[in-house]
Amino acid sequence: MKTFMKAAMIAACAAVMSPAMAQAQSVNAAEYFGDQKVVYHFNGNGGEGNKAYKGGLRNLQNHINAVGAEHLEAAVVMHGNGLGMLSEAMNDTDLQGAVASLKGQGVKFLVCANTLKGRNIDYENDLYDVWDTDIVPSGVAELSRLQQMGYTYVKP
Amino acid sequence: MKTFMKAAMIAACAAVMSPAMAQAQSVNAAEYFGDQKVVYHFNGNGGEGNKAYKGGLRNLQNHINAVGAEHLEAAVVMHGNGLGMLSEAMNDTDLQGAVASLKGQGVKFLVCANTLKGRNIDYENDLYDVWDTDIVPSGVAELSRLQQMGYTYVKP
Amino acid sequence: MKTFMKAAMIAACAAVMSPAMAQAQSVNAAEYFGDQKVVYHFNGNGGEGNKAYKGGLRNLQNHINAVGAEHLEAAVVMHGNGLGMLSEAMNDTDLQGAVASLKGQGVKFLVCANTLKGRNIDYENDLYDVWDTDIVPSGVAELSRLQQMGYTYVKP
Repeated sequence: MKTFMKAAMIAACAAVMSPAMAQAQSVNAAEYFGDQKVVYHFNGNGGEGNKAYKGGLRNLQNHINAVGAEHLEAAVVMHGNGLGMLSEAMNDTDLQGAVASLKGQGVKFLVCANTLKGRNIDYENDLYDVWDTDIVPSGVAELSRLQQMGYTYVKP
Repeated sequence: MKTFMKAAMIAACAAVMSPAMAQAQSVNAAEYFGDQKVVYHFNGNGGEGNKAYKGGLRNLQNHINAVGAEHLEAAVVMHGNGLGMLSEAMNDTDLQGAVASLKGQGVKFLVCANTLKGRNIDYENDLYDVWDTDIVPSGVAELSRLQQMGYTYVKP
Repeated sequence: MKTFMKAAMIAACAAVMSPAMAQAQSVNAAEYFGDQKVVYHFNGNGGEGNKAYKGGLRNLQNHINAVGAEHLEAAVVMHGNGLGMLSEAMNDTDLQGAVASLKGQGVKFLVCANTLKGRNIDYENDLYDVWDTDIVPSGVAELSRLQQMGYTYVKP
């Protein structure tokens, strides 16, 4: 059996385990991937049942499971309709749980100030768990800033 | 108040001002972001009222406002259905204005020759303000070329 | 006539020729683009007639025609609904032909092990022409891995 495939099976198992268990068992996948930086870009609607948001965040959880939280610097950048992730998370407990869990693993959730201003969004009352240090002047400029700092880009 | 937040508020204000005013007042955001290069990728339809095109170009304007036109090298690459941006701009004056304004701030609008050929598009008559120097052999290969030249990638 | 435009016309012609003919005639475009690495990201549905898959793969063929197969290292990463490309290719002969032709030109088609596991997909029986060396532990982590190896990113 090829090394690739071994790593694949380990990581696949990891996906259905707790982050802690996954971390312990995904040694081979972690070696294969090494240290990574990544920014996930959200600017669309979540759709029915916030499916797009949950799917994108599940991708990020799988990403962490494969690479290992200690080997991954991850950020989520939201602008435009993408802020819907955190407004929907006020009431959708599954979505809220996904955000909270990822934050607990070190993922930064960054919010575009242009969108807050343009749409009169009060981040303290309208969005789930946003602090002033989570606000970036411009979501799109932040995407470029992070990429220039060595972050890879994923549009889920 | 954190530096992040100060920059955010300045940039947020900048978003509703003229580019010139924004440039003068977004000093902090410009410092935070530094010099940037970015390519925006358009290959889809604009949808009702060309909403997707206008939204994507508004993102780019906000990007410029935050970083400062003199600190940003920006290109738009269009291929496939994305050329609809410039065919629609023939008649949609809002869209035309957005394109013209961005060009005035130094943004290059690059058109895929494969798409022109494959769809029998006469760029001089069918598209808004395209010159032979705006044509690239392949839109997708241009996306890779620019990234290899240090441009970051944004799919709005 | 500008060099850009000459290259554009050559590449445009190339797009409707066989890969071999295109390779011979796209010398100028190949010079303009130089050596490239690129990863194409597929995670969505193909839609009616697998239009999205066929369009994305046609983009990649045009990319090869412009740059030249010997100057391009290309990979397709599929995860989530994007694996639909290879399940649909079991029965859609046009799609199957596009995949096979690109593989013949050196493109790697990489499949996410997390998705196989999460959806109980048997890649040997349910997907078109997947081998164990085509499986990566995580599609999204592979996107980051390739970008960190110098691959540019295209979301078609």
